[in-house]
This record gives sequence, structure tokens and C-alpha cells, in this order.
Amino acid sequence: MLYNDSIVALATPSGAGAIAIIRISGQDAITIGNSVFQSIKGKDLTTQKSHTLHLGHIIDNQKTLDEVLVSIFKGPHSYTGENTIEISCHGSTYIQQQIIQLLLRKGCRMANPGEFTLRSFLNGKMDLSQAEAVADLISSDNEASHQIAMQQMRGGFSNEIAKLREELLNFASLIELELDFAEEDVAFADRTQFWELLNRIEFVLKRLIDSFAVGNVIKNGIPVAIVGEPNVGKSTLLNALLNEERAIVSHIAGTTRDTIEDELVIGGIGFRFIDTAGIRETEDHIESIGIRKTFEKIEQAQVIIYMLDSSLQLADGSLQVNQIEIEKIKNQFPSKPLLVVGNKSDLLTKEVTENLKSEIYNLNLISAKENIGIDELKNQLLSFVNTGALRNNETIVTNTRHYDSLLKALDEIQNVKHGLETNLSSDLMALDIREALYHFGMITGQVTNDELLGNIFANFCIGK
Amino acid sequence: MLYNDSIVALATPSGAGAIAIIRISGQDAITIGNSVFQSIKGKDLTTQKSHTLHLGHIIDNQKTLDEVLVSIFKGPHSYTGENTIEISCHGSTYIQQQIIQLLLRKGCRMANPGEFTLRSFLNGKMDLSQAEAVADLISSDNEASHQIAMQQMRGGFSNEIAKLREELLNFASLIELELDFAEEDVAFADRTQFWELLNRIEFVLKRLIDSFAVGNVIKNGIPVAIVGEPNVGKSTLLNALLNEERAIVSHIAGTTRDTIEDELVIGGIGFRFIDTAGIRETEDHIESIGIRKTFEKIEQAQVIIYMLDSSLQLADGSLQVNQIEIEKIKNQFPSKPLLVVGNKSDLLTKEVTENLKSEIYNLNLISAKENIGIDELKNQLLSFVNTGALRNNETIVTNTRHYDSLLKALDEIQNVKHGLETNLSSDLMALDIREALYHFGMITGQVTNDELLGNIFANFCIGK
Repeated sequence: MLYNDSIVALATPSGAGAIAIIRISGQDAITIGNSVFQSIKGKDLTTQKSHTLHLGHIIDNQKTLDEVLVSIFKGPHSYTGENTIEISCHGSTYIQQQIIQLLLRKGCRMANPGEFTLRSFLNGKMDLSQAEAVADLISSDNEASHQIAMQQMRGGFSNEIAKLREELLNFASLIELELDFAEEDVAFADRTQFWELLNRIEFVLKRLIDSFAVGNVIKNGIPVAIVGEPNVGKSTLLNALLNEERAIVSHIAGTTRDTIEDELVIGGIGFRFIDTAGIRETEDHIESIGIRKTFEKIEQAQVIIYMLDSSLQLADGSLQVNQIEIEKIKNQFPSKPLLVVGNKSDLLTKEVTENLKSEIYNLNLISAKENIGIDELKNQLLSFVNTGALRNNETIVTNTRHYDSLLKALDEIQNVKHGLETNLSSDLMALDIREALYHFGMITGQVTNDELLGNIFANFCIGK
Repeated sequence: MLYNDSIVALATPSGAGAIAIIRISGQDAITIGNSVFQSIKGKDLTTQKSHTLHLGHIIDNQKTLDEVLVSIFKGPHSYTGENTIEISCHGSTYIQQQIIQLLLRKGCRMANPGEFTLRSFLNGKMDLSQAEAVADLISSDNEASHQIAMQQMRGGFSNEIAKLREELLNFASLIELELDFAEEDVAFADRTQFWELLNRIEFVLKRLIDSFAVGNVIKNGIPVAIVGEPNVGKSTLLNALLNEERAIVSHIAGTTRDTIEDELVIGGIGFRFIDTAGIRETEDHIESIGIRKTFEKIEQAQVIIYMLDSSLQLADGSLQVNQIEIEKIKNQFPSKPLLVVGNKSDLLTKEVTENLKSEIYNLNLISAKENIGIDELKNQLLSFVNTGALRNNETIVTNTRHYDSLLKALDEIQNVKHGLETNLSSDLMALDIREALYHFGMITGQVTNDELLGNIFANFCIGK
């Protein structure tokens, strides 16, 4: 793959705003930019230093399109590693279109999705897992997923993989050398050291593979099923859980009302609340459609909140019905954490409170309206996420592609170990090592192909 | 009004994109930026030159929020005239919010709508009409409105006003000086020169006031009523008028399908097509509701297209009905340009064509489907817009506020002229001149007040 042409794209979100950025990358980026730019101070962009800003006008055939600021980045000191200019223009869609069309006429072509980042990868500015982290970073919407993407973009993950790959590559070379001297029956590779390395690799791979469970949850949010009738105070609870955290966010920008209702960020972790009907109103129990639907929704969830109106339990005799339901859920989903939450605790007498607590095991009494017990509930929810790795800044795998490659690499490493134990011949063992190396390389991009790159970068937005 | 604080806002459209720009302006902008920025090369932002770019990380209490590029602009060499930095971060809404919140904690406050431009005006970087042009520029969506906004932003309009104001101010001073020597009956101001100046001002004001008719049309688009039955090919005509111009635009970004159907840009001028029913199907003519509605819509339009299916006219005898309708419209709206368009001309024989042309005066035969006669129709539409001023780069007034001030200024200038003719005493004449000067100053912002500024900048987007 050779890229000699210059690509252009709008880098800021589409639509009107105060300013918009149009980015050009390629060997001729600065020359092309200069051909449509008239500096206020009469400067020639091609003779300017890298990382400088220049005020002037974009001129199309003597017509002034806009007053703009142009940033110059000279390759390799740019995002793509190529010559790059960024045109900061007024954020009118008309102006954006006119400038882009002008640049297309001057010899640029429209960038494909992710092509700036693809070029950055191809020019050795970042490895493949770092490039993938760029897209994760842009789509991250909470602290945890942001932190993981940031760590991956800074190379935490791929450094670890690349280091192990290098050590393994070393041994592979030694073992392949033995093949050349096969008749002399020499062993260049120290088998004890090799065994030790394989164990180390296996340990790291297992840790990374395990981290995917957390990583996946953090990236996609934790699904929580709320079982409960409408009038028990579900939306009041969601609002109480929400409190300041989102309130600050929403008055700035970009938060839509819809999101608030279904997704909450608690302690930096995203939770997706799935509303379900109760399982009560039915005659023939397990078989009814209502129950099946509720159970299907619970199936998708990772945590279950069973919510009831604590003020009614002893009054209207609904306690028994709820106890039966809770048992039913426990029997059906024995491994899923279940939080029983009794709302409206502010309406209870001390006596009723004690009574309820003795009737329902582990009852969490709260008052969503009075903000009682909300912090405890938050901590309970967070306790279901193993955030240890996150706190300790350990590498967490969030990408399914990486996870697949890690599983395959582990498989091959275990083959190699088995080969060592059974005194497999060097040539067969070398094949297994090469396979493991291949899967390592797939993660960092040292091994790659057009189809893989196509798949990865097609998910990027245009302009990145 | 004194502004010592530093304001922050997202300058790019909200939502996720490749990159986003966060802008800080104020005395402490660079210091505040530096306090959250860790340069890759260990640079201190406060010691860097203006108009330079720096790669590094935004750090919030040892946690890395993002890898960013920071642009430095030192006052007065910035948009606002104050110290300014622009942080170019990854376009995740989460990151945008986190960085803005961090900056708020570090002592910035959220900018009000248009506050960057307001500061630019208050710091003398642009006059008020130029500041208003910034908002017009961002909202411009076609060539003509863009060109006018661009011209106004570059000072074309206000330079002209400011120059006249200065000359007038000169005379005002001389006349006011005469008041001090009232008892000696001297005349410092040469009445002949003064008369000549007043005539010159009157001429310019009248031209500017006249230009508002064009300016308003260009800014808001030209309303065109299409009278015609659904099956005569109206939507095919709109598509044919549309052709490549919009097609190029729409594959880039920001063009919605809705807009295409009702608004077209032809030769850089916006046209708004208003669909009306015919006026035919009715018993008692002028009074029926259908006709009244059609006439109401035509009332709003500036141009009328009467569209008929030319292939049916002689065949089904609808010619007579159409002739009556056309006469009706001509009688009702004698001053509105009317284009009679006969579609489906490709289905006509030469003989029928000649017949029709002799029956309907000034019939425009077209085939929207075969793209025949479309260019001629475009030229006809454009001929109704007086684009002469536009082509000759003359100043065109588009702003209602400016238009009002110009009318008031003209009124006062005519009072002064009348005063000169009737030998009005200097003190009374001085009052009229001051009034005129006031209205001039209102346009450029040399005279201003908080309420006026509030009204103007409230219409800006935040971040501009």
C-alpha cells in the first residue's frame, strides 16, 4: 500500500458551529493548502515552520471564501506522519462544503473513514491496537471506558504484547537455527529458559483474557434488569442515582434526555437499566408470556434489582407475593447478583422496618424521594464490577478482535508447551511458535492484511 | 463593561467527531491552559510564542484526560484580542465535557452566546456590523448570502458609513464651535461644502436603503409560488432545476432531503418554492376558499410560476381554462413577475408547439424529464433578482437593524438639509446633526448600549 495522494475531510462534527476544521494530509498537503491561501502578512505556507498558525483568507479564483487560521504540521511530526494542514474556518456548512470542493479541485481526494489514522498506522506513528483505541476513545462516554481507551492509545497493552512477542521471536530463531544443524543434534535454545518464558507468556495471556470480561462490561455498560411495578418509584430511583454527576454534564452539551432515562454513569462505570414488568399477574406460572418476557430480559442482564414499595408490604399483604417472586428469580438465576430494594422507607415506622427486614433477606431499604440509602445502593452496584484492575492501572482488553487473537495465541503457546514436554521435534515446534507469533502480530499490526485493515478502519468516522 | 475573567466554550458543533476544539479567552487563558497541560517536550506554554502549536496531554489530578494539540494566541493578536488558547482534543463528548469541567474548576467560566465575538468587538478588533456579519456568515447557506456576509465582515459596509460619519462629525464640530461665538455671528462651517456633503450622504444612504430589498431577498431566499396541478411535473422540474449543483453538495455533508424539496440554490441565489393548488376547481370564483388560499400563497411570493402540461392543452381543451386562470392571476397581481411554463414539450409536434405559442403569450416550453429549456428557465428566474449590485461588489444591506438606522439617519439628514435651506439657527441644526451621527454610530457600534449588545449577541451560538 502506497499513499502518495493528499486526502481531505471535515474533522469536526457536521453541522453549523462557531468553527470547523478541515484537514488535509499527504505529501502535497502544504503546497495545495498554500495554493488556495492568502496570508494576511503575505507569508508563503511552504516556507513556514512546522507547528505554526497563520491567519489569512481562502481564495477561490479571486473570490474570498472565508477568513481562516491554517495550522502547519510537517511530516513526520504530524498525526499521520505526513505533511498536514488544518484549516480552521467559520462553521457554516456552506463554507465547509465550498472549501472542501475547492481542495478537491486542487488535487485532493475525499478521505475514507479512518484514513488519517490508517495512514498514521502505516507510517509507523502508532501500532494497530493504538489505532483501534482512537475510535474507542471517541466513542467512550464514561470514565472507565475512557480510561481504558486512553491507556491503550498510549501503548500500555501493545507494549506488553510486543515485548513478549520479541522474546518469543528470539527463541523461535534459535529453534529454527537448530533445524539447519539438524544432523548434528545441537540445541541452541535453552529449554529451561524457554519453559520459563512460555509460562510467563501463558500467565500474561490468561490475565489479559480474563480481563476481557471486565473490559467488555466497561466498554458496553453493565446491564441491570429492574423488576418492579410502575408505581414503586423506578424513575425516581433512576433520578436519585443520577444526581449531580449527570446534572453537571447535561447543562454543558450533548446529553440527550433519552439517554438519561436508560443509561446512568455511576462511579465512572456505565449502567444500562432494563425495565421489566413484574412476574406476578399471571395464572399458570412459568409458562405465561409475561413471565417469559421478563425472564428473557433478566437473562440479558448482569445484575437484577427487584424493587418493591416497602410501605405497602404489610398493609396490603403483597409481601407474600413478593417473597414468592423473589424465590422464583433466585431459583431461575442462581448465579446472577440480586438486589432487593424496598422504596419509600421514609413512610415506615421503626417497627415495620424491623418486621420487613426479618421477612426479606438482605433487603435494601431506600427512599428515592428523600435520597436515603442511595449511596449505599450505588456502592452495591459498583461492587458487582471488578474494578480492581481498573484502579491498579492494569491492562484491560476490551476489543473482541484482540480477545480472539489472545485466545488463539494461548492455544498455540499451550501447544508449544505440550511439544516441549513430549519432546516434539524442533521443526514441528517451530510451526506452533510461528502460529503464536502470528496471533501476537495480529494484535499490534506487525502482521496484517488489507481485509483486516479495511474492517477495522471502516468503523471510524470520516475525518479521523 | 470590563472583562477580566477567562471564558471557555466548545467551539465546534456538539456531538462526536474526529476532533473538537475547546476555546479559552481572557487575561489568564494561557496560564490556566498551562496548568492542565503537560507538553510532550516539557514546554511551558506561558513562555511560548504566539501562533504556535504544542502536542501534549491534558492532566486532571495525575489522570490523563486526552492527548491534545494546543494553539497559543497572545493578545492582541487573537480573535478576541485577549490571550487565547484553543485545545484540539479527540471528539468524544465525554472528553469535551471532562476538559471543560476541569477548566471551569481551574477558574474559567462558561462563555455566553457570542461572548468571544462580543469581546472582539469590545476590544476594538471589529466594529459592530462586522461582528453581526460573523453570525450571518455562519448561517449563510448559499453563495449570495455568503458573499454579502463576507464583504460585511471584511468591513465594506462599515468603512463607508464610518467615513461619512467622520466627515459629518467634522462639520458638527465646526457648527457647534459657531455656537460659542454666537454673538459674533461667524460661520466656521462652509455652507456650500456642507450642502455638498449632505447630498453625498443622502445619495449613499438612499442607495444602501434601496439595497435592502435585494439584501433581504438574498438573505432569506426568493419565494416562488408554483401554481399547477400535481401531475404536470412540478417535482420533476424541481429535480431538473436542482441538477448537479446540489448533488455535489449532498454527498459531502449536511444537506437534508427535506431542504432539497422546497429550497433550491440557483446561480448562488436561494429560491423557496411554495406549492399551491390550482385555482380552477371551483364554482363561484374569487370567493371560494381554495382560491383564497392560493392567492394568499401567491401574495407571499415574489415570483409566480404557472405550470401546465403542454401536451394536454389542445387535446382535452384545458387550454381555455388555463388562459382564464392566467388572466385572473395577472389581474390580481399585476406587478408580480409571472412565468408561464409548459412542461412535457418533448411530446409536442411542431405544429402544436406553434399553436400553443400563439395562444399563450410568453409561454416557456420545457421538458423537465428530458432537461429541455431548464437553463433558460433558470436564467429567467435569476433575471428577477437584481444581482447587479452583487456582481459589482457594491455594499448590500441585509440586516433589519442596519436598515432601520439608515432610515432614521436619512430622515435626520433631510432635516438638516431643510434646516440649511430655511436658515435654521446653528444650535437647532447641531441637534439634528447629532441625531444623524447617533444613528450612524448605532450601525458601527461607536454608539452602543448593553441592551443593544445583549440583543445582538444573544442570537449567536455559544463558542463564537
